[in-house]
Amino acid sequence: MNNPPSVRVALDAMGGDFAPSETVAGGVAAAGKGVEVFLVGDPNQIKEELDRYKVDDLPIVVVPSSGVIEEGESPIQALKEKPQASILVSAGLIKGGKADALVSMGSTGATMAAAIFAFGLMDGIDRPALGGPIIGLSPKMVVLDVGSNLDCRPSQMVKFGALGAAFSKSYFGISNPRVALLSVGAEEGKGNRQTKETYQLLKESGLNFQGNIEGHDLVGESSDVVVCDGFVGNVVMKLSEGIGYALSRHLDSKLKASLKSDVAQNVVNDIYNMLNSVENTGGGPLFGINGIAVVGHGRAHATSVERAILTARYCVQAGLLQSMSNELKQLKEESIQS
Amino acid sequence: MNNPPSVRVALDAMGGDFAPSETVAGGVAAAGKGVEVFLVGDPNQIKEELDRYKVDDLPIVVVPSSGVIEEGESPIQALKEKPQASILVSAGLIKGGKADALVSMGSTGATMAAAIFAFGLMDGIDRPALGGPIIGLSPKMVVLDVGSNLDCRPSQMVKFGALGAAFSKSYFGISNPRVALLSVGAEEGKGNRQTKETYQLLKESGLNFQGNIEGHDLVGESSDVVVCDGFVGNVVMKLSEGIGYALSRHLDSKLKASLKSDVAQNVVNDIYNMLNSVENTGGGPLFGINGIAVVGHGRAHATSVERAILTARYCVQAGLLQSMSNELKQLKEESIQS
Repeated sequence: MNNPPSVRVALDAMGGDFAPSETVAGGVAAAGKGVEVFLVGDPNQIKEELDRYKVDDLPIVVVPSSGVIEEGESPIQALKEKPQASILVSAGLIKGGKADALVSMGSTGATMAAAIFAFGLMDGIDRPALGGPIIGLSPKMVVLDVGSNLDCRPSQMVKFGALGAAFSKSYFGISNPRVALLSVGAEEGKGNRQTKETYQLLKESGLNFQGNIEGHDLVGESSDVVVCDGFVGNVVMKLSEGIGYALSRHLDSKLKASLKSDVAQNVVNDIYNMLNSVENTGGGPLFGINGIAVVGHGRAHATSVERAILTARYCVQAGLLQSMSNELKQLKEESIQS
Repeated sequence: MNNPPSVRVALDAMGGDFAPSETVAGGVAAAGKGVEVFLVGDPNQIKEELDRYKVDDLPIVVVPSSGVIEEGESPIQALKEKPQASILVSAGLIKGGKADALVSMGSTGATMAAAIFAFGLMDGIDRPALGGPIIGLSPKMVVLDVGSNLDCRPSQMVKFGALGAAFSKSYFGISNPRVALLSVGAEEGKGNRQTKETYQLLKESGLNFQGNIEGHDLVGESSDVVVCDGFVGNVVMKLSEGIGYALSRHLDSKLKASLKSDVAQNVVNDIYNMLNSVENTGGGPLFGINGIAVVGHGRAHATSVERAILTARYCVQAGLLQSMSNELKQLKEESIQS
């Protein structure tokens, strides 16, 4: 793209375990790369953080809010009780046409509720899906859902296929993404009730459906989009992160005994990143809402916040919204009834 | 244990991708460690393989069979059509009191069907479960089910908890195993319908239930027994294997550039083994049948076959059968109705 128009991102500066210090730091870094950043939160706290940086020439605007929705609160209840909470004010900026995308490291449930409130769901979607390239070893494989939709109906899973294909096309430029279904065996007929029914629907969906894949196929390039129930996807994402963390710790001690420490550190970081791609992209978009909202990890530090903002910008520039809407419309009717 | 009586293992020498050469080699190695091994299969092929080794003084008996049940055949159908198949003849040796345990690298479905036929299921069990310490990074964490039972009822999953606890006690000597439920969040109330119901039953089961764990907790020592639906467990097991394979390949090239090749190879092997514990134990027992049957990996080579035989011997010596039966009997009635 030549000179794309600048993108305006509303960042919930109060969300996440290390807010506002790490969120503000990440926002400043992203602003330094040309993103217009709205820092939404307690103005005193934010200004205190901003004083650490040279920000006079950066496109940063502080937007005051009051209250934060914590992890573990009921999102719907909290939205009612805290109408000035940072996530709601952030979402309101987009609803009001002042910003183009929302980024939050705070409660996923609250972000989802605020995003639905502000943008609305796409036609035929009951609940947004979460996903993205969750395994660093498979950097272009989009897996969804990863925890938003548990107990999925097969017709919902077909929509994950379409939303994932939209991401694959607009984000990675893959023209005809290969869609696969995560199951326990490659053959048609292998799986539980849910995946067996989904298999049949995916065959009729009009998507470029390749059939089942197994757990080990999540590592590699065999598919561009992997469809799974959010329960399974969540376990997959967290297991991969857990392995990355444990292995990098294990190797750290092992390699430092036999390698120069910088070389060892390099290998260790590499392993960690290969298994934890949220660290690379900063977070994943919410799929199926009429707006761009990127949800990051609660434990995100500044670099990860910055990446989440850049991911949001890229989603806007790449036309992810239009692409998702198109893919959903193109699904064959018979595959999404129910 | 002081001088435990010798254990007799019936090995399906025709089962697995590299049978009979690797199965016979593994059988010979195990016999060298004092296990009495019945090699069941085509006598000509087996004798040809045996000619490669010095076996005159080893406790090896060749038992003729005719036919093999292949992966992908319908097990029930195949058992009817091939009554002299190696897996059936092997199971028959135990039924007839000639052997103490069954080991197969062949079709899991066929092994299961033959084992049910020969031994019968324990009271209250509909279908055997598969499991064991499937992640090398968590060498004493027993995960089940890993692919035998899909679409589990909550009461079935409670029984997995009891069977896993039996394994943990008898195999690892853990006196009061901590049982956890794999879900998407630690708090009670997180999960899909199946895990939410199972949570309630596990609380009332009499097991030492610790609550939910998440995907990343599968790495480490937070629990001794992890209960999950076979669909999820299968994905977990294969993902871990896939990551181990991919990482060890990746590190191989990376480390050999900066390390002596033997040191590098050591690290690479270490990674592989940490993520693939079937390679360490050779395979897992079938849980919930009235006999010891260890199912290995179809791709097993001799070392892995040998380990599977030693695992079977240990299960016999450690009294796994009695332990499983006891644990099932001790479950509170209200937790296993349905």
